[in-house]
Amino acid sequence: MQAQLQQLKDILAEVDDLMRAAAVLQWDLETYMPPGGVEARSQQLATLERLAHTRFVSEEVGRLLEDLHPLLEQEEPDSNTACLLRVTQSEYEKECKLPGELVAELARKTALAHTIWQNARETKTFSTFQPLLNELVDLMRRKAENLGYTDHIYDPLLDVYEPQMKTAEVAAIFKTLKDALVPLIQQIAERRDVVQDKVFQGHFDVKRQWDFSLEVLREIGYDFRCGRQDASAHPFTTSFSPDDVRITTRVASEHFSAGLFGSIHEGGHALYEQGIPREFVRTPLNNGASSAIHESQSRFWENVVGRSRPFWTHFLPRLQRFYPEQLANATVDQVYQAVNVVQPSFIRVEADEVTYNLHVFLRFELETDLLAGAIEVKDLPELWNQKMNIYLGITPPDDALGVLQDVHWSAGLFGYFPTYALGNVLALQFEQRMRQDWPGWDTEVAQGKFAPILHWQREHIHAHGRKFAPQELVQRVTGETINPQPYIAYLEAKYGELYGL
Amino acid sequence: MQAQLQQLKDILAEVDDLMRAAAVLQWDLETYMPPGGVEARSQQLATLERLAHTRFVSEEVGRLLEDLHPLLEQEEPDSNTACLLRVTQSEYEKECKLPGELVAELARKTALAHTIWQNARETKTFSTFQPLLNELVDLMRRKAENLGYTDHIYDPLLDVYEPQMKTAEVAAIFKTLKDALVPLIQQIAERRDVVQDKVFQGHFDVKRQWDFSLEVLREIGYDFRCGRQDASAHPFTTSFSPDDVRITTRVASEHFSAGLFGSIHEGGHALYEQGIPREFVRTPLNNGASSAIHESQSRFWENVVGRSRPFWTHFLPRLQRFYPEQLANATVDQVYQAVNVVQPSFIRVEADEVTYNLHVFLRFELETDLLAGAIEVKDLPELWNQKMNIYLGITPPDDALGVLQDVHWSAGLFGYFPTYALGNVLALQFEQRMRQDWPGWDTEVAQGKFAPILHWQREHIHAHGRKFAPQELVQRVTGETINPQPYIAYLEAKYGELYGL
Repeated sequence: MQAQLQQLKDILAEVDDLMRAAAVLQWDLETYMPPGGVEARSQQLATLERLAHTRFVSEEVGRLLEDLHPLLEQEEPDSNTACLLRVTQSEYEKECKLPGELVAELARKTALAHTIWQNARETKTFSTFQPLLNELVDLMRRKAENLGYTDHIYDPLLDVYEPQMKTAEVAAIFKTLKDALVPLIQQIAERRDVVQDKVFQGHFDVKRQWDFSLEVLREIGYDFRCGRQDASAHPFTTSFSPDDVRITTRVASEHFSAGLFGSIHEGGHALYEQGIPREFVRTPLNNGASSAIHESQSRFWENVVGRSRPFWTHFLPRLQRFYPEQLANATVDQVYQAVNVVQPSFIRVEADEVTYNLHVFLRFELETDLLAGAIEVKDLPELWNQKMNIYLGITPPDDALGVLQDVHWSAGLFGYFPTYALGNVLALQFEQRMRQDWPGWDTEVAQGKFAPILHWQREHIHAHGRKFAPQELVQRVTGETINPQPYIAYLEAKYGELYGL
Repeated sequence: MQAQLQQLKDILAEVDDLMRAAAVLQWDLETYMPPGGVEARSQQLATLERLAHTRFVSEEVGRLLEDLHPLLEQEEPDSNTACLLRVTQSEYEKECKLPGELVAELARKTALAHTIWQNARETKTFSTFQPLLNELVDLMRRKAENLGYTDHIYDPLLDVYEPQMKTAEVAAIFKTLKDALVPLIQQIAERRDVVQDKVFQGHFDVKRQWDFSLEVLREIGYDFRCGRQDASAHPFTTSFSPDDVRITTRVASEHFSAGLFGSIHEGGHALYEQGIPREFVRTPLNNGASSAIHESQSRFWENVVGRSRPFWTHFLPRLQRFYPEQLANATVDQVYQAVNVVQPSFIRVEADEVTYNLHVFLRFELETDLLAGAIEVKDLPELWNQKMNIYLGITPPDDALGVLQDVHWSAGLFGYFPTYALGNVLALQFEQRMRQDWPGWDTEVAQGKFAPILHWQREHIHAHGRKFAPQELVQRVTGETINPQPYIAYLEAKYGELYGL
């Protein structure tokens, strides 16, 4: 049995090497690749993904999984081996439903789409992206049909990022959130002028923004010996192994907060990936439990830590050293206000904590309707703008500030968006549990104590890699299932205090 | 037959995708990879190279090549199809002799060796690199034994870079060169003070060096839409397709010439790769004919063009704009002298045109002795320093300036070094031929006319990719076999004039 386990691990290692190599090529495509390189790159990515897929769905893997079934009974259910076999079995069943040709075609088309989306966004012309997006939606529908579903065509795509979660469950959670957030946003709107962001208005040298973000990342525990930060059109995190986890961000002189919180957000993802045990390397366990669990880490660091008063008590004096003229007289309270202004805005990744979720609802609704065939690609810009108006009362002046802002659809990441809001919800469930272990965690942040937070996350979340299904992990850590109430309570308390509601 | 040809091409495309993906991972390893990434990277590279090898030496390829044999007779011998079949057949026979496990092990060990070599060079301690170099030499010996040879164990390794060339032929050419160069260097040494490089002494801002090198590269025809320049420990060129050809260099404020000529050298390689016809993409024909032919292009641009008087007639005013204070009063003649000072020095890539070859002879002798077992890895530093003393009359003060300076051995590139000097030789044979077509090529460079040079190279050399064996290409272009006389005559004339011999 041990020999067969080793055989399986060897194949999984090969598949992992191919997928991580593809991730390197993708990272390069989004950071340094010259424009001419896209055609060859799309072929290379298609080949790598096809080979990884073919190897994984081979009869050999099926036979080994069958042979190893008794081991699954013998081993402790929580053991690494049992979890590896379970996760592999489940992935194997899913992947077997996808033809290699579809996997390759999706890899090729999304690589090509990246450049086309980027140009479309730069020139603010949705029409140049539309034909390829049409093809991608068709490919996603084929993928969904192949994976199969009973309730909603969106279910199998959501399942890629959030195993076992259903579209209807997401809709129910979003309904609860919406019922709490829409009135909260209204109340805030009435007291708009109470909270100001004047302190971060104006020009902030981008080189210094960059250096400050590196300093913050270093302090919260991101290990630069095993990582780096680069610039890209859309911030992302990628892992080639727990010892090589990279993030990207974008900085603009007029948007100080956007660059910094982009870095902290991706830093949160990176801390998760860097924290996965080395024994999981080159296996499917070297991954986060799900995208929502991943977002619970990134959104936690970005918002619950990064937009807190103690955080700025610690970091404002550091930041003042980078911008001595602009910020010499800034107070912690001014900065705390500036990073927590609630205001309808166009760009999701730059949105405040409260309105952020509405950006996600909008995308979730458009995605599900698009996949179900209720709406068409060509109508997306208009529908986007309509929904922005309904949810936030503003209309994007162009598609770069609207439907073209996110990288996700060009990358074939249909099903990902809801996990951002689910991550917000989970972040506060985890925070509640952490507070039981360490009641004063947030006040100690004021002294620059970030290591205990990371230590808690490492122990309760990162150490498990992908061993457990997301909802099982949530149950293990918090003792309950996903529950939006702590998040709603957090927002109401924080913004109630800020806006004097 | 066409169906089988397509099948073969599909497999070759897959193999090429894997090898180019490996090249991306290697590029990243040498440019941006954080130190922690090396372990995973070595595994990923091993997997990619093993899969490429396994796919290429599959029975299917053997059978297709056999089936397609009649096509080889039908097609014009110079046609793309005939050349593709010939090159593939020859590569197939070589690759079949190598076990996949050896290919993977070499990929893994060289990836690990890169970081270890880099650290050893930084800390100037050969002993930290020695154990891995020992293993690499053993692997190279195994590779040579597997490939087979009749005369010298170095032959099959040389053949990887210079197909059909033998160690004995190289030794004979080097003997001719040595007989001419050693007395020339002696004559120059007696008139050492005649040529000065004062104009480039001192501190040259590295950012400006970088920008100037980009300007030069752009003007000689390097297409940055399909390429880019980055920094690395050792300059190199890599191609992911003719539309994505990247170079690296290194700049140091006290070594103005080294950075610039590094860029021009790699630019010469890149022009070759960017000039390969797009119809060769994803086939073995998307390559230079050999390393010596490749070096003939890079050394030509670096030296015959870059170290010429007309080049500086054109570029000095441009350079003066980058360094207005330092170079305001510099004359073309001063700069021409400065970039042509002949002086024994430690670092090959920074050596003048004349002594450069002696650096190559030294490495060729050490490599051949090492492979033959006549010397041992542990003795390399001492033997290196002895030979430096014999050839150039100087002794490196440490191993960073001696045996550890080059990336090649850590990368398993045994057999590559001689091609630098062979490239020097070929560069002047090609130049002679180009002069027949365009007698005033060098004087027109003074007006910044580089396009006709590139055009000539594109037509006579680049356009053939790897269609012809190197010596056949030399014969086609020049009407003769490799011949060091034009190169010797060039050096004697140029440096005779400079030093008033």
